[in-house]
Amino acid sequence: MEIYLDNAATTKPREEVVEANVRVFSELFGNPSSLHRKGVEIEKEIKKVRKNVATSLGCADSEVYFTSGGTESNNISIQGIAKAYLKNGNHLITTNIEHPSVLNVFRKLENEGFKVSYIDVDKNGSVSPSQLYEAITDKTILISIMHVNNETGRILPIKEIGRKIKKASPRIVFHVDATQSYGKLNLDVENFLIDSLSISGHKIHATKGVGALYVRKGVKVSPLYAGGGQESGLRVGTENASAILGLGEAVKACFSNQHITRAHVKIVKEHLFDGIKNTISTTVINGSIDDSFSPYIINIAFLGVKAEVLLHSLEQDGIYVSTGSACSSTNNMQSHVLKAMGLKRLQIESSLRFSFSRDNTIEEMDYVIERIKKHVYDIRKIVKRI
Amino acid sequence: MEIYLDNAATTKPREEVVEANVRVFSELFGNPSSLHRKGVEIEKEIKKVRKNVATSLGCADSEVYFTSGGTESNNISIQGIAKAYLKNGNHLITTNIEHPSVLNVFRKLENEGFKVSYIDVDKNGSVSPSQLYEAITDKTILISIMHVNNETGRILPIKEIGRKIKKASPRIVFHVDATQSYGKLNLDVENFLIDSLSISGHKIHATKGVGALYVRKGVKVSPLYAGGGQESGLRVGTENASAILGLGEAVKACFSNQHITRAHVKIVKEHLFDGIKNTISTTVINGSIDDSFSPYIINIAFLGVKAEVLLHSLEQDGIYVSTGSACSSTNNMQSHVLKAMGLKRLQIESSLRFSFSRDNTIEEMDYVIERIKKHVYDIRKIVKRI
Repeated sequence: MEIYLDNAATTKPREEVVEANVRVFSELFGNPSSLHRKGVEIEKEIKKVRKNVATSLGCADSEVYFTSGGTESNNISIQGIAKAYLKNGNHLITTNIEHPSVLNVFRKLENEGFKVSYIDVDKNGSVSPSQLYEAITDKTILISIMHVNNETGRILPIKEIGRKIKKASPRIVFHVDATQSYGKLNLDVENFLIDSLSISGHKIHATKGVGALYVRKGVKVSPLYAGGGQESGLRVGTENASAILGLGEAVKACFSNQHITRAHVKIVKEHLFDGIKNTISTTVINGSIDDSFSPYIINIAFLGVKAEVLLHSLEQDGIYVSTGSACSSTNNMQSHVLKAMGLKRLQIESSLRFSFSRDNTIEEMDYVIERIKKHVYDIRKIVKRI
Repeated sequence: MEIYLDNAATTKPREEVVEANVRVFSELFGNPSSLHRKGVEIEKEIKKVRKNVATSLGCADSEVYFTSGGTESNNISIQGIAKAYLKNGNHLITTNIEHPSVLNVFRKLENEGFKVSYIDVDKNGSVSPSQLYEAITDKTILISIMHVNNETGRILPIKEIGRKIKKASPRIVFHVDATQSYGKLNLDVENFLIDSLSISGHKIHATKGVGALYVRKGVKVSPLYAGGGQESGLRVGTENASAILGLGEAVKACFSNQHITRAHVKIVKEHLFDGIKNTISTTVINGSIDDSFSPYIINIAFLGVKAEVLLHSLEQDGIYVSTGSACSSTNNMQSHVLKAMGLKRLQIESSLRFSFSRDNTIEEMDYVIERIKKHVYDIRKIVKRI
């Protein structure tokens, strides 16, 4: 049996997604820039996906650009906007719990001479819109805030933040990294006053190697790459057509049953949480179980247990979870997110992230609870002996 | 019947490539950065492909980086090297027949303050190593030359150029855009004294969305994107695992029968050329039929015929060819390559590119010759009447 609970790291592509990819490989393999039918037919299909994504966000088709993924969307947008508006100021704002593909972009920009304010989060992993408002200066040109934190699932108040930003100055560009929320939570770029937004394909059962970027009409972005002019020059290089058509299928599926999937995933998450809380002593949820957290993610500390040991024990049972984010796991660093929330080293080192998909079931959770209980008991026994 | 002769724009993925992609979608869908088995197993597979690519180039595994394609490889390498060595000088050299993903990168760097020398080509579309040598100054830090021109098939003397560059100064970095030659012609980074080299997956029957970049150990590259540290920080973002494994299959196939495929393609190309020359009057080859051109590409002018009209006529017969490069076709510009070779406007506007793969046959060429003959006759008749 395999129970995959690392859906915030990556998801399994849906069947329709695989079929769309294979269809492109075998039939629609033309270069979208080619003048002949083989080019025109795939270009038309890409256009349809662009429309789907635009509809899902409530924006115009021409405001959607396909990229190679969330990291690229964040890089193009944050670097490109910062550079395009440098003449208006050099101050940028973000939080200290962003994904590495945001946080490290800001550090890169700092090295290039920009000033960055990193807003602290409270013990529940959120930022206060008022605190953010206070950080705005007349040199502020760009503010980037994630919608859902990838390690804790914390939903950040981006709607309120958007209002605060535009109240301070309508000319400040508001970027949102929606990698963990797109297709899962309500998101409306018009209503939330978002100017730019990153989407990742492989977090919503599309394949790796594809993402999207929304940029509001009128917002300037200096492209980072130069080439053949694809994606209006914002992301050049032959379009990853198969992955884009796959993304289209994933988007359709997400949005046709978003509420049902969310409700299902919430039940699964709460079942796991209750089971762990009721049967394993000294466990602490990093955050809370309420609606300020995404139903797709939960982060729990098993005090006295090294998370990595528990992770590998569960792996032996075919259960896949993670410690923090996959993108920083290989760097062997302590979670910057849990640290920012004020957690002590021992709690951080005993924390596991469980992240869910529509494929997970209550029965799976019962098995996971039973296995965690056994491993935590065994590990704690060994630790005591030493 | 469909006869695809636009293989320089993109190729149809091989069956093994499709199978490798589907295997990743359904079984190996983990995030390579995940600590558990689902991450480790796909990371191992990626490592194997890295070894394959390294072997094919005669370099170390650690010198191969996966990217999203040729355009990205060129951008990372050219921009990244220019920026890393700026303290040594600000002079760059390239040719005026490069692909847009090279040429436009140099124009971008020019806008950022670099000085660029664009070496002219002769009427056969090649550059003289001595002329290039003359352009080198003590401020030259990077020279980028394509191996095979994507519009004419001209093979550039990169081995001699490499020697000239290193004779001028061993510290000048030599980048080669091998998009149209990798897997097709002999290429050895050690012997050719190449420091950096771009590869595109979809030109060798892998899928779109994947490429590779060779960077010699010790050569510095300033990364353009920041993020989770994948590909040693040179190309961050979750690896496009399915496409990388597909690339591995394509590379294996290319290198197991490179000579045979090349010989086959050469026969096909020469058959087409002879047929056109012998049956259609006033046709001119842009370049020549000898071995200074890749057997995979031929560019022919049908004087008095608008190439685009002929392209669409052939399309009706299921024959797919191109006018110049796909990457600049939508810009509706005259081929900068044919212009650089000194061709007159009328000749450029009547030029078609035919590009071949192992799948093309002599029988197909007979049909193509017959159809071209008919269409050229019809078009010329109409033009005369007007």
